[in-house]
Amino acid sequence: MSDVTIRDIRTITTNPRGVDLVCVKIETSEPGLYGLGCATFTQRYTAVVAAVNDYLKPLLIGKKVNNINDLWQLCMSNSYWRNGPVLNNAISGVDQALWDIKGKMANMPVYELLGGKCREAAAVYRHCEGSDMDEIDAQIQQYIDEGYHYIRVQQGSYGGNMNPSNGGMPVKAGQQMIWSPEGAPEGAYFDPDQYMDAVVETFRHVREKFGYGVHFMHDVHERLSPIQALRLAKDLEPYRLFFLEDALPPEQVEWFEKLRNQCAVPLAMGELFNNPLEWRDLVQKRCIDYIRVHLSQIGGLTPAIKLANFCEAYGVRTAWHGPYDLTPVGAAAQLHLDLVTPNFGIQEFAGFTDEEREIFSGVPEVRNGYLYPNDKPGFGVDIDEAAAAKYPCSPKNYKWLRPRLPDGTCVRA
Amino acid sequence: MSDVTIRDIRTITTNPRGVDLVCVKIETSEPGLYGLGCATFTQRYTAVVAAVNDYLKPLLIGKKVNNINDLWQLCMSNSYWRNGPVLNNAISGVDQALWDIKGKMANMPVYELLGGKCREAAAVYRHCEGSDMDEIDAQIQQYIDEGYHYIRVQQGSYGGNMNPSNGGMPVKAGQQMIWSPEGAPEGAYFDPDQYMDAVVETFRHVREKFGYGVHFMHDVHERLSPIQALRLAKDLEPYRLFFLEDALPPEQVEWFEKLRNQCAVPLAMGELFNNPLEWRDLVQKRCIDYIRVHLSQIGGLTPAIKLANFCEAYGVRTAWHGPYDLTPVGAAAQLHLDLVTPNFGIQEFAGFTDEEREIFSGVPEVRNGYLYPNDKPGFGVDIDEAAAAKYPCSPKNYKWLRPRLPDGTCVRA
Amino acid sequence: MSDVTIRDIRTITTNPRGVDLVCVKIETSEPGLYGLGCATFTQRYTAVVAAVNDYLKPLLIGKKVNNINDLWQLCMSNSYWRNGPVLNNAISGVDQALWDIKGKMANMPVYELLGGKCREAAAVYRHCEGSDMDEIDAQIQQYIDEGYHYIRVQQGSYGGNMNPSNGGMPVKAGQQMIWSPEGAPEGAYFDPDQYMDAVVETFRHVREKFGYGVHFMHDVHERLSPIQALRLAKDLEPYRLFFLEDALPPEQVEWFEKLRNQCAVPLAMGELFNNPLEWRDLVQKRCIDYIRVHLSQIGGLTPAIKLANFCEAYGVRTAWHGPYDLTPVGAAAQLHLDLVTPNFGIQEFAGFTDEEREIFSGVPEVRNGYLYPNDKPGFGVDIDEAAAAKYPCSPKNYKWLRPRLPDGTCVRA
Amino acid sequence: MSDVTIRDIRTITTNPRGVDLVCVKIETSEPGLYGLGCATFTQRYTAVVAAVNDYLKPLLIGKKVNNINDLWQLCMSNSYWRNGPVLNNAISGVDQALWDIKGKMANMPVYELLGGKCREAAAVYRHCEGSDMDEIDAQIQQYIDEGYHYIRVQQGSYGGNMNPSNGGMPVKAGQQMIWSPEGAPEGAYFDPDQYMDAVVETFRHVREKFGYGVHFMHDVHERLSPIQALRLAKDLEPYRLFFLEDALPPEQVEWFEKLRNQCAVPLAMGELFNNPLEWRDLVQKRCIDYIRVHLSQIGGLTPAIKLANFCEAYGVRTAWHGPYDLTPVGAAAQLHLDLVTPNFGIQEFAGFTDEEREIFSGVPEVRNGYLYPNDKPGFGVDIDEAAAAKYPCSPKNYKWLRPRLPDGTCVRA
Repeated sequence: MSDVTIRDIRTITTNPRGVDLVCVKIETSEPGLYGLGCATFTQRYTAVVAAVNDYLKPLLIGKKVNNINDLWQLCMSNSYWRNGPVLNNAISGVDQALWDIKGKMANMPVYELLGGKCREAAAVYRHCEGSDMDEIDAQIQQYIDEGYHYIRVQQGSYGGNMNPSNGGMPVKAGQQMIWSPEGAPEGAYFDPDQYMDAVVETFRHVREKFGYGVHFMHDVHERLSPIQALRLAKDLEPYRLFFLEDALPPEQVEWFEKLRNQCAVPLAMGELFNNPLEWRDLVQKRCIDYIRVHLSQIGGLTPAIKLANFCEAYGVRTAWHGPYDLTPVGAAAQLHLDLVTPNFGIQEFAGFTDEEREIFSGVPEVRNGYLYPNDKPGFGVDIDEAAAAKYPCSPKNYKWLRPRLPDGTCVRA
Repeated sequence: MSDVTIRDIRTITTNPRGVDLVCVKIETSEPGLYGLGCATFTQRYTAVVAAVNDYLKPLLIGKKVNNINDLWQLCMSNSYWRNGPVLNNAISGVDQALWDIKGKMANMPVYELLGGKCREAAAVYRHCEGSDMDEIDAQIQQYIDEGYHYIRVQQGSYGGNMNPSNGGMPVKAGQQMIWSPEGAPEGAYFDPDQYMDAVVETFRHVREKFGYGVHFMHDVHERLSPIQALRLAKDLEPYRLFFLEDALPPEQVEWFEKLRNQCAVPLAMGELFNNPLEWRDLVQKRCIDYIRVHLSQIGGLTPAIKLANFCEAYGVRTAWHGPYDLTPVGAAAQLHLDLVTPNFGIQEFAGFTDEEREIFSGVPEVRNGYLYPNDKPGFGVDIDEAAAAKYPCSPKNYKWLRPRLPDGTCVRA
Repeated sequence: MSDVTIRDIRTITTNPRGVDLVCVKIETSEPGLYGLGCATFTQRYTAVVAAVNDYLKPLLIGKKVNNINDLWQLCMSNSYWRNGPVLNNAISGVDQALWDIKGKMANMPVYELLGGKCREAAAVYRHCEGSDMDEIDAQIQQYIDEGYHYIRVQQGSYGGNMNPSNGGMPVKAGQQMIWSPEGAPEGAYFDPDQYMDAVVETFRHVREKFGYGVHFMHDVHERLSPIQALRLAKDLEPYRLFFLEDALPPEQVEWFEKLRNQCAVPLAMGELFNNPLEWRDLVQKRCIDYIRVHLSQIGGLTPAIKLANFCEAYGVRTAWHGPYDLTPVGAAAQLHLDLVTPNFGIQEFAGFTDEEREIFSGVPEVRNGYLYPNDKPGFGVDIDEAAAAKYPCSPKNYKWLRPRLPDGTCVRA
Repeated sequence: MSDVTIRDIRTITTNPRGVDLVCVKIETSEPGLYGLGCATFTQRYTAVVAAVNDYLKPLLIGKKVNNINDLWQLCMSNSYWRNGPVLNNAISGVDQALWDIKGKMANMPVYELLGGKCREAAAVYRHCEGSDMDEIDAQIQQYIDEGYHYIRVQQGSYGGNMNPSNGGMPVKAGQQMIWSPEGAPEGAYFDPDQYMDAVVETFRHVREKFGYGVHFMHDVHERLSPIQALRLAKDLEPYRLFFLEDALPPEQVEWFEKLRNQCAVPLAMGELFNNPLEWRDLVQKRCIDYIRVHLSQIGGLTPAIKLANFCEAYGVRTAWHGPYDLTPVGAAAQLHLDLVTPNFGIQEFAGFTDEEREIFSGVPEVRNGYLYPNDKPGFGVDIDEAAAAKYPCSPKNYKWLRPRLPDGTCVRA
């Protein structure tokens, strides 16, 4: 068993849902034995592909598949410079594929390797994004009817109603105008004050309509200044959010302590984190309630296990990032970790489309708001490469709104 | 007098009230001179009995009875590994029995040895646990009628309405359903949100009905996440609890600082504490108002005296744990300490049943909500071993609900 | 596979080396499939046996073997009071046995389940305890000749030269007298100043004789006052210890910060720790270099994995406690963890006797100072129960020196 | 002037010195007006090239060249995930090229745009790496003879004498053997203790030989454990290093506080830093003396100006990373910043080879240990693309020793 080696490493890219996905496939010296891992950094996928194919592949071919702990360190150290999204995603693809292989070699789902379940399924939350209250109401009701109990509610989009370009002139945003200087560049303008008003009004409304028996959360997406974030958190306190997400950007996490001093709103943070330095102090000071990193973004399952354990020590729960912009392999990896983590909190979830199911078999299934893995060995998800090829990736697929404040200032979110 | 030695040590176990109790009896070289101490760790009583009989007894026989300070250190050091519930309870049995002997040798109640009373009796609080508001109202009224002024109010049980098993299906809990995944294991499921709603509603109700002239407290029993505990504490603030008990588990006591920053609810904590490391920082930072350790759980009267003194230094008051799951000897030991402690706060109390009185003579008496010791030497409580034998102990007597969150996660409380 | 359940749980006790050992054997519904775990708290083994047989066994029989993460939480929560040596060891026996079973079910060594090796073998250190310099020199030379590179050096015993009883009179200790009051109780007296002088002189001598190419460590065994510990650490600094162990008792770990401020002596601590509260702050503040808990003492492999990960976050390395007073099953469990932990530091090791090998097969092997596991499934260690029975346990086997300061004060170490 | 826009963006790769270099060339709407920037992350250069060509180029083409502050934010926000080496280097290429263009548009060197010089030239330090003392002495003497006053001294390589593979057997390293377990993987083994001894001996020797009139520094290259780093720093204190570099890895920078408490050795840190979170606390607490980030690694000149300003606030000086693994364009960018920074400390420098001069014209010149820029507009450095093409890049050029500790543990350095 311990003589199985890495025979080949390949990246498989596919875009079944408007998002460029990267899957790493490791083939072994054992015929038919291979593993899959998620390496999706959709905003820069070609850089990840280059890192895997040009560097990790020659580094790893011929090495034994079973010493994941050593190989992970080797990959991290090999580039010397490290701790960023491109390289971490590349390593994640390898790391998860190796765990998938290990599960197959043990003839066990990965959650069994991790000590076995401490719950049967993971509660998930869905996204509701209506452009107005009626749309929001309809979507919430639909999710409730489908059996979901946790719903993230946004009005418009991140930062509220936005307009893709204002041509230097005030533009209509919701019921109000955004007032900008002449010559302001193109972008998706939003007004923090309009946004904050809209969010508070939205939650007042949905609590009135749906009561307190369903859980709501909201994602600020780092679009406020620190003091605005504090005001919004306090204004939202009466509406008992399950959590308020990314109220601050990763460069300013020390401000969370101020939020903590003034309100009891549960705080979630982390999808933009790259390495332990970014979360260590925040968790240690218990300034957040939910850690929300993206598994592949921090380097895969191996570091995520350690992060989950770290957070357990401080009473912080997990809420791994994960809508759309990861492969179903990555979604399964999250879920396996969810099931073995005592301090699991909630799992973000976006469902799977027919196209995703055409490409990926064995994807987790949702029933009554809970997500269940299959019980196949490894992560239990396989890929049909021919089907994947039907949905080609391209950097041109990536369109990101360029968010700007009313005066034209670019916002990093 | 100083030549009196330990002739024999025995454990006496009895279960007059559905709870396995352990009493340690030390017989001395002086005919008729013996002492009793409480060593009740009801959830693992056979392990305590083994520790006393197999290890402390041979260690101590022949030693002088009067050097309690030395013998306590000797017992603590003898196992090398220490600071846990089994060994601390075993030592407590010995420690309290030696104090009982010392009182008899002085022909004085123990409270006299401790410097004498600074109050005549100790105010106590009783437990009210109704499954609905009517039951709660009736019990509160009955306690008031009996002269009590302090009442701990729970609805249902710890964590609110619970169902002993859900068989993987939603089950009825109070007025609502608990929503669980398929295959969720057996247990006593509770929903933190339903629980929090019910608690706040309960206190709103009892304050409306009984006003602010009676003192109410509530025990969270460590069943909430830290951020939930913070929210509950804030929501309860208007109802002026005497204290909120065990809002957090002992592994997460650092979160008390967050509660302290946002509300003025008096906080009580400590029945699960084993040793000074667990309370030192919490008291030193003045993050709690009442220390609520179980005397035998921390090793008996000797360390409890020191803990009371330590808390006095920081303005923290005492509220020793003690309903049911201790012998009347242990109840008397608590009470003697209550009477000599300037920073005494309140004493938990569960009354005594006829069966307990049949076995134990000289138990403290309650009059108008105050608990009085007798004025016999030592702790003033004796045991009838024949009567004790009528109520045999067995590990099979112990049934603990296995509390689980809606998704099936086991909770340590 | 997931239908395998726990059919029986038994404790097997044996004393092949003068130390009472406790092994837990879990038999499953699958004929021939069983697991072994170490539950050795030798100083109170009967209490551990009672906890396993009277409480954990009925709690666990019939439960599925694979959900270790759930069962560990269930065991911890079931006694309500927790976090002490007796109960943690009992849980460890169950926990390790379940990991052993899981490895066998996967047909893999446990280190493979934990992500695979990041080193091939674990460097170990041995104990040298000579009563004088000649004995010390001879033992060190023997260890070096056998291929060891790390040696713990003590003169006399813990605390230096001691005398088992002084009968109230000054007694001879090393070259000097210990000066005690009349009537001082029996015990093993030691003089901290004589001890400190002897330790410093010992290391001056062995560095002169053996140079700096071999690693030495020393164990204070919590026998000094904090300020004495600081002085000793500084006095030893020129001799470049690999680490100084247990310079302070667990109740006074905050003093480590003072040691850290004044010298660069590597500090190891932890065999007496019971739960995360005791190590969290110390590690978080980076006041120690090596965490040295006893795996079964903190509840088994499951919490030890988490602790190793926690320490990695802070740059603290592992040095699990483990000479003599654990079964070879426990020694294997340590070793499997050593091999997968990037932040592994060193492994304490006492070799195995013929009697241990008669009882336990598959014990780890040492070659050139490195310890290697076998590559059998699970921990790879089996027990011959008939052979175990030849070496019966008894509380009477346990003799602990009762250490006392010159004036007769009992020391908790 | 403000109507000049970006017409094209290209990456130019070249390897004139054994290191893959990446240069970004921005061509503008103004014929003949272009800029050059350094984007060299040599260990993963193809990923940087992909990021520039696939994402930054389409994002930026057509945008005005002059709003660097806006474009830098736009590039950072565009990938959403950020703060890592690949993306930062890509942005740096663009950022520096835009500064080069701006200088040309102003007809001024960039240092003039930054407020003008506060010194005429920047003192540099060179690298001395001898395999034994004689080689070290000879190199130092040569540097002194050439007019240098600051010399970084290493013996062997980072971590001291190393052997590229040990095949599972002890191997020769310097005068001693490295002792490894059987089956230890291939790699460059080093022994921290041998290394520390060699470093201390080296500095003792060079101070004896060259006195204290020349400045020496040393680079630990993050290869020690924290407590080893502390010991080394203390041991080196008598030899008055100009600074000790990278004594700790970026994941463990909090340990610098321990070094600060015990010795006065100047500390330099930072080449591995990616973003402000990593240096903010360290600088704020004044735990280092020199900030040593790689300009392109943090995103170019724009953030480096801010970092220099930030450090000035705390009395910390600059020592930008930069030997070999950057283009002469990047070297010029550093130098321009050095000249305008009041808190400049020292500049790392590796000279330029004939091949580099063949490709790049206008490189800075060194005279008597000081580095001078030319006074041409922009950074003053141009590239000959045909010459660059003569030295093609390839991921295969990258060979990194895989450093391992004696027991085979992979080290991230």
